[in-house]
Amino acid sequence: MKSTARLALVAAVVWGTAAAAQAQLSKEDMIKYRQSGYTFMAWNMGKIKAELEGSNFDAARVAASANVVAAVANSGLGALFAPGTDTGKGWKETRLKPEFFREPDKVRQIGTNFVQQANRMQQVAAGGDKAAIAAQFGELGKACKACHDNFRREE
Amino acid sequence: MKSTARLALVAAVVWGTAAAAQAQLSKEDMIKYRQSGYTFMAWNMGKIKAELEGSNFDAARVAASANVVAAVANSGLGALFAPGTDTGKGWKETRLKPEFFREPDKVRQIGTNFVQQANRMQQVAAGGDKAAIAAQFGELGKACKACHDNFRREE
Repeated sequence: MKSTARLALVAAVVWGTAAAAQAQLSKEDMIKYRQSGYTFMAWNMGKIKAELEGSNFDAARVAASANVVAAVANSGLGALFAPGTDTGKGWKETRLKPEFFREPDKVRQIGTNFVQQANRMQQVAAGGDKAAIAAQFGELGKACKACHDNFRREE
Repeated sequence: MKSTARLALVAAVVWGTAAAAQAQLSKEDMIKYRQSGYTFMAWNMGKIKAELEGSNFDAARVAASANVVAAVANSGLGALFAPGTDTGKGWKETRLKPEFFREPDKVRQIGTNFVQQANRMQQVAAGGDKAAIAAQFGELGKACKACHDNFRREE
């Protein structure tokens, strides 16, 4: 993986914990890693949706998918959002809007809520109650959408 | 995300559980999702390595990274390895070797060991003992490498 255009990570991390020891990621790698995390979450969100809509609901599969979403949410994603990474190409051109760096309070509120909803999803999924899972899946989806609506460019 | 070239998933899933209800992923999406999962794991493996080599070892950060690796390992990745997906492009051309589909026993053994080592890594990381974490990180790395050596093309 190429590691050109290295950026010093500023101390302010938007959400999650910073992997301070790994501060020397290139801008391109940051974008690639976060695109990977979100894409892999999308697969797992899709799996949960399919379980809820299908005729063979399997609580263990839902729990496995919810574990992914919670683990990614708690992985310190903030370290992948260094200033300047609203432009640049990981797997593809980033869709992050510059507003992300201008509205830190809103980012923090949205990011914190996302982590909370993901953690709740993991707990509810472990319980195995389909109706509760469906309700929390809706809340989690809203938390995802809040960030998309505010900070992600349309394709 | 494009969903052309749809493949029917065969019942035989290499490791993990199949998300049967979501069997209609395109070959391209399968490759993209697994590339995303492995790339996001790579970031988290790198974070663990950096913690072990740095001067500010933080057990909570290691645990967060280990949770990602374990969750991805247990997410039913086998469903993303339908026959024929040793060619095709997700984010980039797949590096999966055709041997993957010719040696199911070896794939199962390597895949099962990977899941076991990832689960053990998660447990050990939760314990917070740096020496134990370093030892298990080595075992986990070997489990990853076994698959790379056998079933991943060189770039």
